[in-house]
Parts: sequence; C-alpha cells; structure tokens
Amino acid sequence: MSGSEIQRLIQYLGKLPGLGPRSGRRLALHLLKKREQVMRPLIDALVTAESMIKTCQTCFSLDTHDPCTLCTDARRDKTVLCVVQDVADLWALERSNVFRGQYHVLGGVLSAIDGMGPNQLSIEPLFDRIRASGVKEVVLALNATIDGQTTIHYLIDRLEPLGVTLSTLAHGVPVGGELDYLDDGTLSTAFTARRAI
Amino acid sequence: MSGSEIQRLIQYLGKLPGLGPRSGRRLALHLLKKREQVMRPLIDALVTAESMIKTCQTCFSLDTHDPCTLCTDARRDKTVLCVVQDVADLWALERSNVFRGQYHVLGGVLSAIDGMGPNQLSIEPLFDRIRASGVKEVVLALNATIDGQTTIHYLIDRLEPLGVTLSTLAHGVPVGGELDYLDDGTLSTAFTARRAI
Repeated sequence: MSGSEIQRLIQYLGKLPGLGPRSGRRLALHLLKKREQVMRPLIDALVTAESMIKTCQTCFSLDTHDPCTLCTDARRDKTVLCVVQDVADLWALERSNVFRGQYHVLGGVLSAIDGMGPNQLSIEPLFDRIRASGVKEVVLALNATIDGQTTIHYLIDRLEPLGVTLSTLAHGVPVGGELDYLDDGTLSTAFTARRAI
Repeated sequence: MSGSEIQRLIQYLGKLPGLGPRSGRRLALHLLKKREQVMRPLIDALVTAESMIKTCQTCFSLDTHDPCTLCTDARRDKTVLCVVQDVADLWALERSNVFRGQYHVLGGVLSAIDGMGPNQLSIEPLFDRIRASGVKEVVLALNATIDGQTTIHYLIDRLEPLGVTLSTLAHGVPVGGELDYLDDGTLSTAFTARRAI
C-alpha cells in the first residue's frame, strides 16, 4: 500500500526486542519525518557501531578496542574477576560503581532447553585466564534464575580445584522493596541469611 | 565505560518514541550481537528508505513514487477525498479496507499551543486540489481530539463555499466495546446519535 521499502523498514523495526508491528510503524514514520535530525544520525551511529565495535577476546565484552578499555585499565584490580552472563550485566555493575576489578562475560548461561552447553559459553577462556593470570577471587554475579544458579554450581565445581576464592551475590530484600510484595523465595532467603546488628 | 560509539548508539535508540535508556541499551546489545541477521538488514532498510521514500506532492503521503501509487491508481475513485491528519491514519484506513477513494494528508492539526497554523499544514494544497479536480465529496477523517475537531470546524468553514459534500466519521461505541468502560462523552454521543432499527 505504501511502497515495499517502508514495509520492509517497518518489518525490521517491529521485529526488534520489545517492539511490535504498531511500534514499528510509529518508529518508521517518526524516522521518515525527521530525516535530518533523527534518521541520519541514527544510521551513522548504527554504521559506526557495526564497523567499530568488537568483542574483547580477553573478557568478551564489547568495545572499540580489543583488549577493551576495562581490561587494559591499570587502575583496576587484576586479582578480582567478576563473572557475568551478559554485557548488559557488566554495564549494570559498572553503573552501580561497586566493583573495581576485571570482568568476564560468559555470553549466556547453561541451559539444556536452549542448547547452551559449556562449549557455547566462554567458560574455557575463563579457566585459561584464571590459570594464566594472578586472579585470587572470582565473583559469580549471574542472574538469580534457575539457569543462572545451575551455571554457578557448574562453575563452582570446576573452579574449586584452581584454588581461587569464590563468591556469589547476596540474595535478600531489594533496597527500597516492601516485604508484602516480595515472593516467598526471596523473603525466606532474606530471613535465613539475616544479619546480626 | 564501553566506548563512546556504543553510548552514542544507545542514546539515539533511547530517544526514539516509546523507547528509553533501558530499551535503548537492550536494542543496542541485540543489534551488536546479531550483526548479520538483524543489524545489517536494518541498516540497509534504513538507508534504502532514507534515499527512496519521498513525500507525494499531491496527497502528502509517503511513497517511493511521486505522485504516489494511491494517487496514480486508476481503480480508485477520484471524486471522493479523505482528509487525514497523518500518514499513520492513512495506513490505518487502508488496513481497514473501507475506503477506495483518494487521500489528503494534512501533516498535523491546528494547534495554537504547538504553533500549528493553517500555513504549517497542507491546507492550501487541499483547496487547490479540490478546485482543480472533480472532487465531489470530502470525508474529514481527523482524530476525535479537541485539536482534531477544531481543525474539522475550520475546514468546514473554508470548504463549504467550494460546493463539495462534506462528512466526518461517526462517533459512537467502538465495535467490541463495553458500555461500562466508555467515557461519558462517547456514551452520550452514541445515545444521541442512536439509529432506528
């Protein structure tokens, strides 16, 4: 009805995560109406990102440099390694500004249903990295989902022989959270892990 | 923290309508992870659309041709003209498959707050078009908002001297809608405009 080029653009936009046909149409129209202010800069940003962003072969994060700026930052503690599932988790931890060590991005978690075994993840590079460098502590900062916890157990089994200190994130009441709205699992975990004042 | 190129991409994505910083990050990561399957086709679609899609100088819709395929379609009734606010409204009417005439996209509605006067809209081209061609009926299919209704009144005042039949969309209960959930304005309009069976 309005040119297959528009339809194709709407289709690609609507297939992006969190978007659908309606938001795809809305975005396509917005872009076509504001070509100079929105569409052109977005295309430039996409093209630049596509050509310049690569995966760091040390920590498997994304950056314009390989090894990435986090891996080459001399001010960061090389003895503590934080294992995360995804680049988004690395970014979330960096925003919280709580960790000043090095990262290792697994690229997923073990999941029989999704066909994710140890070979699909950057697990062997993790072991190589720990063996080769002076890492003393490994923080397993994976999601508190079943797959995340399974992966943590697998990693603990494999990492213990390497003689590094292992830790995971604390479970409990989210800061600002109300007890009444918490699920039973979180509440009972928080109660069991109660801290003396 | 992760290359200004990624930050810039996230920023542009997060500024699109309906998206925010969180969905911007999610989209950027999704695109960078699936470069071949998602990012490259999207860039191609954007570049193609940017260079090929133009505004039809007859109806002000978007198409790869000017005049557009709707304006040049010989099977469509040239005597009925449907005036819509936006290309999205034209698409919505085309999807509903109820109208087989020609369209005219105003590009907005009159709004003192947004600084939209008659000169910012394609209103003069609408009058020129009606005077020049054999249009017999004009359907004013604008949104049922205050600005939309103001624009309808303005257009009626200016179109009446041209001697064309004017109509607007019917107000009433949406098909599938429940009375209990309708606002008072819609319900009273639907009641006043009740139809004999």
